[in-house]
Amino acid sequence: MSDERRARAALSRLAEPRDLVVHQLLGQVGAAETVSRLCAGHGSLARFAARVRTLNTDRDLEIAARVGARLVIAGDDEWPVGLDDLAIPPWCLWVRGPLSLGAAARRSVAVVGSRTATAYGEQLASELSASLVSRGWTVVSGAAFGIDAAAHRGALAVDGSTVAVLAGGVDRVYPAANGPLLARIAASGAIASEVAPGSAPMKSRFLHRNRLIAAMTRGTVVVEADLRSGSRNTVGHASDLMRPVGAVPGPVTSMLSAGCHEEIRSGRAVLVTSAEEVVDLVGDLGVDACEPLRGMSLVTDTLPINDLAVFDAIPFRRPVDLDTIARVTTLGPLVVRGCLARLESSGLVEADSGTWRRGRPSRR
Amino acid sequence: MSDERRARAALSRLAEPRDLVVHQLLGQVGAAETVSRLCAGHGSLARFAARVRTLNTDRDLEIAARVGARLVIAGDDEWPVGLDDLAIPPWCLWVRGPLSLGAAARRSVAVVGSRTATAYGEQLASELSASLVSRGWTVVSGAAFGIDAAAHRGALAVDGSTVAVLAGGVDRVYPAANGPLLARIAASGAIASEVAPGSAPMKSRFLHRNRLIAAMTRGTVVVEADLRSGSRNTVGHASDLMRPVGAVPGPVTSMLSAGCHEEIRSGRAVLVTSAEEVVDLVGDLGVDACEPLRGMSLVTDTLPINDLAVFDAIPFRRPVDLDTIARVTTLGPLVVRGCLARLESSGLVEADSGTWRRGRPSRR
Repeated sequence: MSDERRARAALSRLAEPRDLVVHQLLGQVGAAETVSRLCAGHGSLARFAARVRTLNTDRDLEIAARVGARLVIAGDDEWPVGLDDLAIPPWCLWVRGPLSLGAAARRSVAVVGSRTATAYGEQLASELSASLVSRGWTVVSGAAFGIDAAAHRGALAVDGSTVAVLAGGVDRVYPAANGPLLARIAASGAIASEVAPGSAPMKSRFLHRNRLIAAMTRGTVVVEADLRSGSRNTVGHASDLMRPVGAVPGPVTSMLSAGCHEEIRSGRAVLVTSAEEVVDLVGDLGVDACEPLRGMSLVTDTLPINDLAVFDAIPFRRPVDLDTIARVTTLGPLVVRGCLARLESSGLVEADSGTWRRGRPSRR
Repeated sequence: MSDERRARAALSRLAEPRDLVVHQLLGQVGAAETVSRLCAGHGSLARFAARVRTLNTDRDLEIAARVGARLVIAGDDEWPVGLDDLAIPPWCLWVRGPLSLGAAARRSVAVVGSRTATAYGEQLASELSASLVSRGWTVVSGAAFGIDAAAHRGALAVDGSTVAVLAGGVDRVYPAANGPLLARIAASGAIASEVAPGSAPMKSRFLHRNRLIAAMTRGTVVVEADLRSGSRNTVGHASDLMRPVGAVPGPVTSMLSAGCHEEIRSGRAVLVTSAEEVVDLVGDLGVDACEPLRGMSLVTDTLPINDLAVFDAIPFRRPVDLDTIARVTTLGPLVVRGCLARLESSGLVEADSGTWRRGRPSRR
């Protein structure tokens, strides 16, 4: 293992994500020298002393190896290039699972939401994810209860590609009840974390983690979120990073949709109702665009108003002559003739020896 | 009755709404002369001959008097000035009910939607209307089944002000099953129409009618609409007239919300979830504005990330010293001190002879 890789592995143990001093040192002197200086602990770097004393990168690498995790650093094929848009990218990523993270991230969507979701939200998250992975997209989420878990499950249900980004170490099963789910993701997708194996999922690390989900994906969709859901923090990161954000609406009577509605109202998110619309939002212009939804339209829906008036003036059961139509509509005979010609050509009316009747439904 | 009023009453019998030739004549020669020319029926004006033959304005005025309807024309106090924004305003309005239409329209919202509504949509329409009229707004709708009827009912339920704009004559009960509802509106609100008493509610007249609803109100809210709902025609008119449009979201699994979602996605409507948000949309800047919704926030929700890390490093049950906190967080002692000071001042932590503990919940 190169000094650079080993040093970045050490940093993921020594320094919290987004430590500005470490980030600046890294830029100035590189990873190996940064670790040396943290270990020397001069001046303000003394704050790392406790972690330096217990630093054991060989042990961290062993733990990683035991759970089948590998180290990924910027520049590697597996590095999700979106992370480079972050003000302070992760020092490295620890990754478990067969999925190649970099390739998967190139066509990925974050599907996130509240831990306390409703059946409506969980079902939608699953269906949306299943539909997204079926279209060749990877679903990235945080493996939390509720929407996150439903999103992963939906992807797994159709043998699709899914990535869980954790706040703690990749070997830590958190939340514990999601152990079986994490095992399935590790078996077919990928689990990633920017903190060293064994690290605890602390509150601040969830917020750090959220920025990775937002940055490594092409866009973020929030399926169900109460007003103070942590998923809105992910939305904020995505929005700051100029990534498109979608939000799924729900009943206005459900507080679990209130966060989604607020995001749409504030203009930070676009309303999305289907995987097609999500792909339209996050995909490539032209290639992935979708048409606006239209109803099963009746021919009469789109008639010019004079044509509609003429059509409406012809009774259901008996034929009428042109004069009658003109009288009922107050349209001039020439105008009526024009309307009738258009209506006849679309099969809505039929001429019948000088009178007009409604076309038979089978011909419409 | 002035010649002008009488002529406009006659026009509402002779000419369909939005007849461009009649509109132009009106502008050039006034109402009385326009009626004279329609009656003479020269050239292209021959198309009015049948209606001229049966024209009986005295009888129309009698029918109106019998149902307690009055004639309102542009310039009257009761004329809703918003109608003047239309390319072709109505020739006149026939109005029943004690409500003064002009005054009511000045602070009015159209609440519209599908005839085939769900219980969710009808309940929302009623609640929204009740809440709007309670704030001094008038709810205008079309007295159709479904959302329209629910909107009127919600307003009536709290003795609020509501206006039904009909496609047929003000004396025609349509749909028939809404007779009792129309009677209640006539008794306390207003029923208005631009066509003469006795006129049938023809298909094209519903489309004409929709533009009146959009134009006379300050804005339009669509509560529930399938993709081809007629209420989207009203939304189109409101949008063309630069009136704000709101749409209420619903479950994405409901086709009755699909039209609302499409209006929001297309940018023609703003997502609204409450009367407060509707008033924010259609009301006066500053006076009627509402704040974005916020959840019941915990103090920890808004902590800077270092403060959160420090707070998170203090266990629930036992006090810790500053060195421990610094070690766990890798923050420098000065930074930790700053965080602790802020956390102490907000009651989240308490100093205890050189150590720190979490503040008692009662103090948060």
